Amino acid sequence: MAHDGSVLEAIKAAYEYNIIDAILIGDKDKIIEESGKIGLNALNFEIIDEKNPAFAAKKAVELVSLGYADIVMKGFLETAIFLKAILNKETGIKKFDLLSHVAVFELPDLDRLIILTDAAMVMAPDLKEKLEIIKNALIVANSLGIECAKIAPICAVEVVNFNMPCTLDAAILSKMSDRGQIKNCIIDGPLALDNALYKEATLHKKIKSEVAGCADILLAPNIETGNAIYKSFAFTSRAKNSGILIGASAPVVLTSRSDSYETKLYSIALSILVSKTLGGLYVQDTFN
Amino acid sequence: MAHDGSVLEAIKAAYEYNIIDAILIGDKDKIIEESGKIGLNALNFEIIDEKNPAFAAKKAVELVSLGYADIVMKGFLETAIFLKAILNKETGIKKFDLLSHVAVFELPDLDRLIILTDAAMVMAPDLKEKLEIIKNALIVANSLGIECAKIAPICAVEVVNFNMPCTLDAAILSKMSDRGQIKNCIIDGPLALDNALYKEATLHKKIKSEVAGCADILLAPNIETGNAIYKSFAFTSRAKNSGILIGASAPVVLTSRSDSYETKLYSIALSILVSKTLGGLYVQDTFN
Repeated sequence: MAHDGSVLEAIKAAYEYNIIDAILIGDKDKIIEESGKIGLNALNFEIIDEKNPAFAAKKAVELVSLGYADIVMKGFLETAIFLKAILNKETGIKKFDLLSHVAVFELPDLDRLIILTDAAMVMAPDLKEKLEIIKNALIVANSLGIECAKIAPICAVEVVNFNMPCTLDAAILSKMSDRGQIKNCIIDGPLALDNALYKEATLHKKIKSEVAGCADILLAPNIETGNAIYKSFAFTSRAKNSGILIGASAPVVLTSRSDSYETKLYSIALSILVSKTLGGLYVQDTFN
Repeated sequence: MAHDGSVLEAIKAAYEYNIIDAILIGDKDKIIEESGKIGLNALNFEIIDEKNPAFAAKKAVELVSLGYADIVMKGFLETAIFLKAILNKETGIKKFDLLSHVAVFELPDLDRLIILTDAAMVMAPDLKEKLEIIKNALIVANSLGIECAKIAPICAVEVVNFNMPCTLDAAILSKMSDRGQIKNCIIDGPLALDNALYKEATLHKKIKSEVAGCADILLAPNIETGNAIYKSFAFTSRAKNSGILIGASAPVVLTSRSDSYETKLYSIALSILVSKTLGGLYVQDTFN
């Protein structure tokens, strides 16, 4: 459903950067009209005329299955309809156990990119789901050139507290990492957000950790925490950001209407990197 | 246990601003020594020599009970020992049903102060506890001159979702507010952090709400979300901030070692405003 001004704007920018080609699926007349408004010649692209959102989503997913497309991007349709096409057991493209949201931020005062998961997809992950979320995030880390990502399970404190279940999960994941049960990363938590991100915050508390102060991946304990961190980074700290879904055979760009045009562009760019990683053999090796 | 350099530094600044007088309880020799290091003459203040942390905390609380002090501030002792003295059923100063943490932020790009609760005290509040947290936060709002605070229960989404319990709580609290069961405020949620804080974020989603885009109080669904927002605002957005405990007969300054000297000073300043409100009759009228 590519007949959406803000989506077309991101497509235009990515096309002008010469990093993508696009197949536009949706209402052909509207696509041409909306493209015209932003100075984009839609006829540069293949256009598939399809006014029904469910059929349009199914078509997009099919193009990935057939190898004609490397990335799927959501346009002007309901998220539920879009996801249904991806997750469909017969015609969908779900590849891993879990579809999760992975965001990447360029924060002020930090010289590394920060990966945040999950801010938008998995609501209250249990330990097994946290492992799948980590696996998906490692694909993104690998795509960004991080070979051994440092993962901080985020809690409200940096000590195990029997009354705070996410601190127990954090301790368990850390020990699994120690024992080599999760490869290509170092997990150490519980950590609070400040001592995950900033060296100076770890000094006061004298935390001994290979992850504290230098985390690459923030693992949120629940969707509320993940979403609040996402919104605070993006809106309050004005950090550049991108977000995609991982778990399908292709990266999925599912930005929100409230996301800026830059966020949509960066999400497309991230998807390109990730689609190369997904094509490789890296994924199978992550877990024992 | 006032023999703590960073606490004494905040005391010194507040004293020089002429907004406090202090009674220093702790190891007298160390208090004088630490004060000397930062150019503070400890003999400006009454000093009570007490080396035992539990006794020192009990003494501080007693001074409030007897009307000799308006604010209690934590020094160099364990939080658990400090809180035990406050919550002690015979000699403590607990006044309301719940002791909760209330933080106040001056965020970039916003022309109003933002109150956040609970980032540090109540772990997984149920509905009844959320009401108490709101009551405590309204004391702070009132102290800041906000007569009818706009309260946003923060969730990951702005719609009710049966699989996300905090969205159900948000709906219930909102209706209680509609029916006048909670006075001196307007509660409307669920809201995500961006559409609670920023008008522009509400426009894309066409949210009709008296609170969206202009919330004064952010009610976190759990301590992990509250703490992550706190840390992101304070460390990533570099927002000026202060935090105190409400629920006792006096405001309690319980800053962390990792908090900056400014945060400690602002927390003292906030306590002064709140101690005036606590002396009034406002509190009793909040609930039907």
